Amino acid sequence: MSKKKPLILVVNDDGITAPGIRNLVEIMNELGDVIVVAPDGPQSGMGHAITINATLRADQVKIAEGPQVEYSVSGTPVDCVKLAVNVILDRKPDMIVSGINHGSNSSINVIYSGTMSAAVEGALERIPSIGFSICDYSWEANFSEARPFVKTIAQEVLNHGLPEGTCLNVNIPRINGVPYKGIKICRQANANWEEEFDERTDPRGRKYYWLTGKFVNYDHGQDTDEWALENNFISVVPITTDLTAHHAMQKLNGYNFETK
Amino acid sequence: MSKKKPLILVVNDDGITAPGIRNLVEIMNELGDVIVVAPDGPQSGMGHAITINATLRADQVKIAEGPQVEYSVSGTPVDCVKLAVNVILDRKPDMIVSGINHGSNSSINVIYSGTMSAAVEGALERIPSIGFSICDYSWEANFSEARPFVKTIAQEVLNHGLPEGTCLNVNIPRINGVPYKGIKICRQANANWEEEFDERTDPRGRKYYWLTGKFVNYDHGQDTDEWALENNFISVVPITTDLTAHHAMQKLNGYNFETK
Repeated sequence: MSKKKPLILVVNDDGITAPGIRNLVEIMNELGDVIVVAPDGPQSGMGHAITINATLRADQVKIAEGPQVEYSVSGTPVDCVKLAVNVILDRKPDMIVSGINHGSNSSINVIYSGTMSAAVEGALERIPSIGFSICDYSWEANFSEARPFVKTIAQEVLNHGLPEGTCLNVNIPRINGVPYKGIKICRQANANWEEEFDERTDPRGRKYYWLTGKFVNYDHGQDTDEWALENNFISVVPITTDLTAHHAMQKLNGYNFETK
Repeated sequence: MSKKKPLILVVNDDGITAPGIRNLVEIMNELGDVIVVAPDGPQSGMGHAITINATLRADQVKIAEGPQVEYSVSGTPVDCVKLAVNVILDRKPDMIVSGINHGSNSSINVIYSGTMSAAVEGALERIPSIGFSICDYSWEANFSEARPFVKTIAQEVLNHGLPEGTCLNVNIPRINGVPYKGIKICRQANANWEEEFDERTDPRGRKYYWLTGKFVNYDHGQDTDEWALENNFISVVPITTDLTAHHAMQKLNGYNFETK
């Protein structure tokens, strides 16, 4: 590999063959030397899961044409980042990009997202990291209009880095025939999933459940990622690895925590 | 169940038979009506994982003596909270307690923790929620000195609730013959895991890896959870569900995100 080009690690949670990561690899090949280290199958909804009670495997593979080097891993997105940084790569990558996820990771979805946990893991490793998602679950999602925006965001992060302990959560509206309006820096909207469990009975008469639900946005602030996406902007939310609710500390100091 | 007593949901990530949850159930039986909805096996390191590509089962069981009602679930800690709140319980619980985890969830461990993700899920459901952990991985961990502190913290949260969008991450030092000094409200220390993958070769000659590593604390602030634990205090960190790095937004607005 050339020494002058940046080294870019590409991961995802939909699995190494997903169209989203294939698009991301093609874009990143224009910006640097690319290593793909991605799960061998879908890992959606894995959050920040890591594999501690099972072994991990990493096999060199070639999924598509191009100069990138690729490894398929038997673990979660976070496992992929850890294995790449500690075992596969011989130097620290200049940037980690995760995705492009098939489906939104805006608002509270960031907490459940394997795509974003790979980016958070990158931030913990002190590597500028970005998670990309498109608000379209289809395997046939159209990435054509998204690609120049993905490239621009990645290039700016390569140029300027990111503040320590933060990564970016980038969400891209589903293509709807109208050009995207641009990129908007946002905060995470205060929204939630209202679960609806689908209860069924198996052939032996035992009940079982499928988790479903609907997304409910309580927060109509124009500075939120949900507002940006609804208005055809690409949303960029900086995400922190410090989960302390600093604003709550003073109140808690007023609780009586003396044991009786 | 009595209508006057608070309804307390107990979950964990070590599995429904773990000593830690058995201690927590006994303590909560003194404070209210207890429902246990916990994984049927260990779920450590599952982060905020949810089960979306498989079915879930919930079986009523009786693991130990006492007035509590218990369900064993085939999913993750977050699945347990969602199933309990949406399917098993006929009213919203007054509090969710998770743990007592065998092993620390202080500092950055909160991100990987199934115990804490159950508490975060509770906060998302707008239910006051606490994750408890003891810094002792042993199944024979001694909870005797921890119990009055766990009870006091839970009672105060029942009395006063918690600020919206926050839950508590409570860590308890390993018992060392000296009484705990008390409870300290803290921020999450800036620390990380330095991974060391243990590389091995299977009988067929293929390489595989075990994830291991050592915890490194970069942050010696006396307001951190790590400092509190090292000094024999019980640490209480309020955790937020808003992951926005608000302090980074202004800087990002200075990046050039115009597409070429």
